[in-house]
Amino acid sequence: MNYRAIRYFLGQILKIEAAFLIPPLLISVFLGEGSSVQGFAITIGITAAVAFLLPIRTKRDRRIFAREGFVIVALGWILLSFFGALPFYISREIPSLLDAWFETVSGFTTTGATILSDVEALSSGLLYWRSFTHWLGGMGVLVFLLAILPLASGGSSLHILRAESPGPDTGKLTPKLRQSVGILYLIYVVLTVLETVLLLIGGMPIFDAITTAFGTAGTGGFAIKNSSMAAYNYFCQGVVSVFMLLFGVNFSIYYLVLVGQFKRLFKNEELRAYLIIIFGATLLIAINNFTAFPSFYDALHHSFFQVSSIMTTTGFSTVDFNLWPEFSRMLLLILMVIGACAGSTGGGFKVARLLVMIKSLRNGMKKLIHPRAVKVMTLDGKRLDSSNILSVQWFSTAYFITIGISLLLVSLDNHSMDTSISGVFACVNNIGPGLDVIGPIGNYSVFSPLSKLVLSVDMLLGRLELFPLLLLFSPSVWRKHAK
Amino acid sequence: MNYRAIRYFLGQILKIEAAFLIPPLLISVFLGEGSSVQGFAITIGITAAVAFLLPIRTKRDRRIFAREGFVIVALGWILLSFFGALPFYISREIPSLLDAWFETVSGFTTTGATILSDVEALSSGLLYWRSFTHWLGGMGVLVFLLAILPLASGGSSLHILRAESPGPDTGKLTPKLRQSVGILYLIYVVLTVLETVLLLIGGMPIFDAITTAFGTAGTGGFAIKNSSMAAYNYFCQGVVSVFMLLFGVNFSIYYLVLVGQFKRLFKNEELRAYLIIIFGATLLIAINNFTAFPSFYDALHHSFFQVSSIMTTTGFSTVDFNLWPEFSRMLLLILMVIGACAGSTGGGFKVARLLVMIKSLRNGMKKLIHPRAVKVMTLDGKRLDSSNILSVQWFSTAYFITIGISLLLVSLDNHSMDTSISGVFACVNNIGPGLDVIGPIGNYSVFSPLSKLVLSVDMLLGRLELFPLLLLFSPSVWRKHAK
Repeated sequence: MNYRAIRYFLGQILKIEAAFLIPPLLISVFLGEGSSVQGFAITIGITAAVAFLLPIRTKRDRRIFAREGFVIVALGWILLSFFGALPFYISREIPSLLDAWFETVSGFTTTGATILSDVEALSSGLLYWRSFTHWLGGMGVLVFLLAILPLASGGSSLHILRAESPGPDTGKLTPKLRQSVGILYLIYVVLTVLETVLLLIGGMPIFDAITTAFGTAGTGGFAIKNSSMAAYNYFCQGVVSVFMLLFGVNFSIYYLVLVGQFKRLFKNEELRAYLIIIFGATLLIAINNFTAFPSFYDALHHSFFQVSSIMTTTGFSTVDFNLWPEFSRMLLLILMVIGACAGSTGGGFKVARLLVMIKSLRNGMKKLIHPRAVKVMTLDGKRLDSSNILSVQWFSTAYFITIGISLLLVSLDNHSMDTSISGVFACVNNIGPGLDVIGPIGNYSVFSPLSKLVLSVDMLLGRLELFPLLLLFSPSVWRKHAK
Repeated sequence: MNYRAIRYFLGQILKIEAAFLIPPLLISVFLGEGSSVQGFAITIGITAAVAFLLPIRTKRDRRIFAREGFVIVALGWILLSFFGALPFYISREIPSLLDAWFETVSGFTTTGATILSDVEALSSGLLYWRSFTHWLGGMGVLVFLLAILPLASGGSSLHILRAESPGPDTGKLTPKLRQSVGILYLIYVVLTVLETVLLLIGGMPIFDAITTAFGTAGTGGFAIKNSSMAAYNYFCQGVVSVFMLLFGVNFSIYYLVLVGQFKRLFKNEELRAYLIIIFGATLLIAINNFTAFPSFYDALHHSFFQVSSIMTTTGFSTVDFNLWPEFSRMLLLILMVIGACAGSTGGGFKVARLLVMIKSLRNGMKKLIHPRAVKVMTLDGKRLDSSNILSVQWFSTAYFITIGISLLLVSLDNHSMDTSISGVFACVNNIGPGLDVIGPIGNYSVFSPLSKLVLSVDMLLGRLELFPLLLLFSPSVWRKHAK
């Protein structure tokens, strides 16, 4: 294990965090928010100090392999969340360190689960920081690092990118990795700015527009109003619906659009399945539910918003879907599990993995009848071999075991089954709100410290797609020589 | 497709059913239960008539391949359930044909979910038949057929055996298939008789002892008392606990014991995992729950009973576990999903499949760190190749898709989520009681006709391990030539 390289990268991560803590500090200074000025200033000091101490004497030997990549990503995200939680804690606006940690993990992992019952009581600086964690966590802080950092070896960066990026396969858009991640971040910034502008046109105040765009871009879901998106008009809600959907799409699709390859866009199987599920579910829920709204149009508007929000694992809400009929709630629960597209900022199991599993099943059923038949499976034109299929199986096994263990631990709190099941699903899949007491108008403060810890680990597991964190507990990662 | 062979086998299945309907007819005649005498007599007449008409002109060509095997098993079980439901319906003791079908499917699939709120109101003849369906369904009616039928080609039988037997791999105990299934049925009969004798020693009336043994052997769960096993003393409950556990074990283990291969018995990984889960869960639930009982011994007694009942997918109960704390209920819900051992009469996902998935995951995590490492995976000394692992994945995909679709359809009834989720799980895994309104003291009569239909299909899907029934809907099964 190359500990020097690990320390080097962890130091870089904290430098970036310290830098990104400056804008909210300025906001708090500008608005005269005394306690949060103090919170930000002290945090920046501590973070910067650690950031400069950590990489001491790491000049030589930055070569890293797969296991260093996983360790850097896992520890990086833990440090990021810990230091990111300090402003909430030091300013006493969230007096419990565990709660501040939960809120920050929820932010960086783009979950959007909150322990706050009154969001509007937070100072503007902290509200900005809280929403910004979504934006940074959405595309990934290490991906950001790779985009700005001149690294010696491209192979090293790929190990980090693979470990941090969501989805079963992380392809390179261009032969040069740094260029690829640069393009991804550019698309990300452009879409965020576009949404902000549209929200401004819709009449949203600028602070609301920026923080909402942060929350949408990262498919996070933290809002600055207690009533989430219900606080805004239909136009703004519509903009958010559409942008949630857009941020749930594989970003390499936008690259294809940029370079004019429309043909491959329309042939993309994951995109097609994703859109079919979203529009199908929207229609079903609107039909199941339309008596609760003044018109079918209203039902469609709100069900599209909620479906888009849950499927992309964002977690904004315009209504309390916890009051909807059971069919609608069950459908939302199932969408929670499926999640967004691979290579997007959304979480969940991912549509691509579902497609691989269904294709493999269809193939298997054919094999049962004609044992000697040989069929080549493809997804989006790429051939699926048994290692692709196996990696999906590894993921789903780890996923269900994680859910099983978390359910048992959280159920010690003795809430209702709706609460425990939807809470674990909402955290593992980085969605945010669940059902029952943690529904859109509830919050996670009802959970015990143990459950908050379990759920925050679930959020990290979900965001990092399980393996980097799970591997931290595997002895063979820490062994000196491969065995 | 060889339709003649299919007709031949379906005819044989119905002949066996007609024959097995004679004992309950005699019971009803003996006890003077007029309406059920009529029900059994008419049913035997109809079933026998169809049984003799179906195989007309099927003398030649009984060669069958995999797809015929699946079709025979799927249609066989549907016919078996339909004709088996007639005595309930004709006697008017269950006035709705759908309810009678639900009850019979639940019986043959060894689920044990009932629509009856007052079981004790049934006549003795029907109570016997209801419990006997568990016994016949447990080991499989086609397996029974293979044990008694002299068939020309051994290969044909293997296709049927594979399609009907639970578990990922159906090994032959001896080179001759007929001998193997004969041994299996012999073990089954001996264990059933042994349990009956022990229950008689425990002071249970003979009718109760026989029907309880039927329900235990098939891991079914239909009881003849409204309070299930709570009606009997601790000794009898203890006997049932232990026998549920025994019937959840892979039957080839008993064969190993018979031929003296104790070494392989102790090395059996599935058995070890199965016992660890049962005893671990028993202990956890007893600890979580012991304040509800007069002593820790009582807590252990009842939690062992319930864990053994749920894990083996039997569904007997001694207490209303619906009132237990959420941790205990969640643990039972997870045990529901895992299920018993492969090659037992129990249902569920099966411990062996879980082990394959965990081993594959562990292998995968090693591969992530050391991509070039090659490791051979084994289960119980047999090498697992990628086709074993893939078949587990096909199964789990089909399993979760089935659960997802069923949840949506059942949720249209607008019950609680506990009810819908535990109901679907309890049916797909052939357990019986669920939580909330379908808990141990509730029953399935609360569901709408659509849900009853969905749940009865779920029970069949669960018992036949999905593929035979799913393949019925696959066009390539019905196509004349392989494609």
